[in-house]
Amino acid sequence: MRMRKLAWAADFVQENDKVTHDPTVNKGKWKQVLGVNELRVEIGTGKGDYWIGMSQKNPTVGWIGIEKDTNIAALALKKAEELALPKSAYINNDADAIDTWFENGEVDAIHLNFSDPWPKRRNSKRRLSHGNFLKKYTDILSDHGQIIMKTDNQKLFEFSLVEFGSHGFELKEVFVDFRREEHEDDQITEYEQKFMDLGQPIYRAIWEKRGV
Amino acid sequence: MRMRKLAWAADFVQENDKVTHDPTVNKGKWKQVLGVNELRVEIGTGKGDYWIGMSQKNPTVGWIGIEKDTNIAALALKKAEELALPKSAYINNDADAIDTWFENGEVDAIHLNFSDPWPKRRNSKRRLSHGNFLKKYTDILSDHGQIIMKTDNQKLFEFSLVEFGSHGFELKEVFVDFRREEHEDDQITEYEQKFMDLGQPIYRAIWEKRGV
Repeated sequence: MRMRKLAWAADFVQENDKVTHDPTVNKGKWKQVLGVNELRVEIGTGKGDYWIGMSQKNPTVGWIGIEKDTNIAALALKKAEELALPKSAYINNDADAIDTWFENGEVDAIHLNFSDPWPKRRNSKRRLSHGNFLKKYTDILSDHGQIIMKTDNQKLFEFSLVEFGSHGFELKEVFVDFRREEHEDDQITEYEQKFMDLGQPIYRAIWEKRGV
Repeated sequence: MRMRKLAWAADFVQENDKVTHDPTVNKGKWKQVLGVNELRVEIGTGKGDYWIGMSQKNPTVGWIGIEKDTNIAALALKKAEELALPKSAYINNDADAIDTWFENGEVDAIHLNFSDPWPKRRNSKRRLSHGNFLKKYTDILSDHGQIIMKTDNQKLFEFSLVEFGSHGFELKEVFVDFRREEHEDDQITEYEQKFMDLGQPIYRAIWEKRGV
């Protein structure tokens, strides 16, 4: 998602008390800090619909939103401004460093929603489902930890199905038209709704880290 | 595919020289018998478009069509009547016994096209991508042998993606809308064309038997 710079964004994020400015200090302690038994991370929150909605649907789960773009992070945090979300936190930083923020086995699930498809082959390493990322996810995920992905992008979905399968993840569930049935436990985002309104399919898959 | 009985079918199949009436006699010898280095098997030929088309596109490859319904097999063989197809053979029998027809490692690829989805859970064992079949396929496939599946059925496709992944197959390629691009090397069947005409996606995946 590209957008123009918002004058208020940097200060707003800087002063927001949901934001963990140095996430490395919580490494290995997130569940203790948030007071939860289950920790879920969304990489690339966009405007925050999913992070907020899922935090509200699952009030006992720790939910950490990650977004590297400060302008977009500011919009997500703005939406969350009047909401309590006591078990949730936010990181405005590049997920490339995710393995410096979470201890091995600390994360129970990683959510990827409508990630940038980076369609050109030379940019494939930037995709959040590229093998280089998957290695980091494998480290920070707990035993049988899950990755849950949603996308409207056919090529990104196809790429991801193959990439996860060849990097130690087992496909547990897959939908080639996720919204053909109701799934009330899963938050629909603003972006997702646009595709649904156009009658276009939403793709979704759940993988589990293979047991050793 | 269900259809009414054709009076001429049984005799026609019985007398057809493309048909191998007792496939167990060729077990371990198919490549020698057909004079080929590569052996491909289609399970469930339906009316034979794929078996015929692919045999013609790949004249040096051994291509064995399998169809248990004698009426449908008769229609496929009728279509092939005036055609040479010197490297191809046909089996009118239930693929449940496939491991008695082929030696371990004898088959290089198995094709499943628009297989019966058997939508009810209690019939899931009848699906040609059920684990019980996959075990047999694993035995008869060569090292890195492939299974190539096409279907219009979302649920069968989703089921198959999960089932293959948990039975020792690695996903190599996947398409959630195979015909959005041209694939001249792959035969379009009459059934497939109907879905394409309706603008409905064709799903396709290629799995490889995992190395030991």
